[in-house]
Amino acid sequence: MQTIPAEKHLKIGGLIFPNMDQCDFTGPFEALSRIPNSTFYTLWKDKEVVRDMRGMQLVPDTAFHEAPQLDVLLVPGGYGQEEVAADEEVLAFIRDQAKRALYVYSVCTGALICGAAGLLHGRYATTHWTAIDVLPLYGATPSDDRVVIDGNYVSAGGVTSGIDGSLILAALLRGDQVAKELQLYMAYDPEPPFDSGSPAKASDNVLSIVRARAQQITEQRFASARRYAERAMDLAN
Amino acid sequence: MQTIPAEKHLKIGGLIFPNMDQCDFTGPFEALSRIPNSTFYTLWKDKEVVRDMRGMQLVPDTAFHEAPQLDVLLVPGGYGQEEVAADEEVLAFIRDQAKRALYVYSVCTGALICGAAGLLHGRYATTHWTAIDVLPLYGATPSDDRVVIDGNYVSAGGVTSGIDGSLILAALLRGDQVAKELQLYMAYDPEPPFDSGSPAKASDNVLSIVRARAQQITEQRFASARRYAERAMDLAN
Repeated sequence: MQTIPAEKHLKIGGLIFPNMDQCDFTGPFEALSRIPNSTFYTLWKDKEVVRDMRGMQLVPDTAFHEAPQLDVLLVPGGYGQEEVAADEEVLAFIRDQAKRALYVYSVCTGALICGAAGLLHGRYATTHWTAIDVLPLYGATPSDDRVVIDGNYVSAGGVTSGIDGSLILAALLRGDQVAKELQLYMAYDPEPPFDSGSPAKASDNVLSIVRARAQQITEQRFASARRYAERAMDLAN
Repeated sequence: MQTIPAEKHLKIGGLIFPNMDQCDFTGPFEALSRIPNSTFYTLWKDKEVVRDMRGMQLVPDTAFHEAPQLDVLLVPGGYGQEEVAADEEVLAFIRDQAKRALYVYSVCTGALICGAAGLLHGRYATTHWTAIDVLPLYGATPSDDRVVIDGNYVSAGGVTSGIDGSLILAALLRGDQVAKELQLYMAYDPEPPFDSGSPAKASDNVLSIVRARAQQITEQRFASARRYAERAMDLAN
């Protein structure tokens, strides 16, 4: 499978924003920034330092107004997704890029940002398992798959699923051989020490604790999705 | 398994440096920065922006001279490891911290930095598969395991193995329950799209291409290990 000519230079961009979950961005960056014949842009409204949910400081290299038309746009999530999904400047940037991008790629609750931007209507999509039931408010059909491809919209589930999705995207862009080389470089032959990586596999005890911890942000996400959904539907039509 | 009292506040630090491989740091950060009752310090010689091998810009929050005695020190790798392993200021910081840290945790070729700092003598260790044969020059016994625990020195193999190791470390520090909660939050239930994540699993073709790409840095690593090894042995004694 290889849809893009190798000689076409690919412009790949990833959003960063305050209170993001850094791993939603940095996991995919590892693969996407190494795609042959490509340039990676780290994007935000300005070029000031951005702090993730746990304080990691990342610096954008390209402001929205400097960005070229991208072939791939990566949209990560994290608690700060709530503010971004209410920010018309960011939503307009995403919508504008999405019109001609080969792929928009959301990781984790980046899907809810894409939902607020009107990109999810009529699409299959996934997101972090705590937020999966929010997707229908944006007109999407939720999927339990770890990575979902629906035309030019690709979504990955929670946090580390962004790594799986980025290798799939590498294969879509440059073929399986390139993705396999990236996987070997990244030594992506995972051995999770426990079998606790999904709601179906975690113990009831672990699940109820992690779910309780996310309850407040989950309720917020439902509330804001109800507010944004109508606008998102208008945008989709 | 839980060795550290839950009420003991843990100080966890991670090095960043120019031309590092960001994922060696950011993968473990995702778990380690969420360990209950802990503070995470992002460390370098100064607080200027650091660019990873692919240009991602990270900012340290703590300079070496400001750092407290750490309970855990994370040492990532990447091509910039070569310069760091020759930098006496960094090596002295690592050696000094290692004396009283509960764990030194190297990811990828961070092991070679620890080797140059004299920490590997007589230890079992692992590193990125392209560099595994360099370890004996630093007095270490190489292991093919993805994560190796040898007393207070923990090492993970290439890049993404740092995620597995960080969950193991979370279990060592705070018990299995905490690690399982982190794994569920991170949705770490990996589904690599190909079976190409280790030299044993990759095709000959993929392996020879990725190995050839790393040949120059591998040769450099052997050459510098030969230069640093004697000093490292002296430091170890």
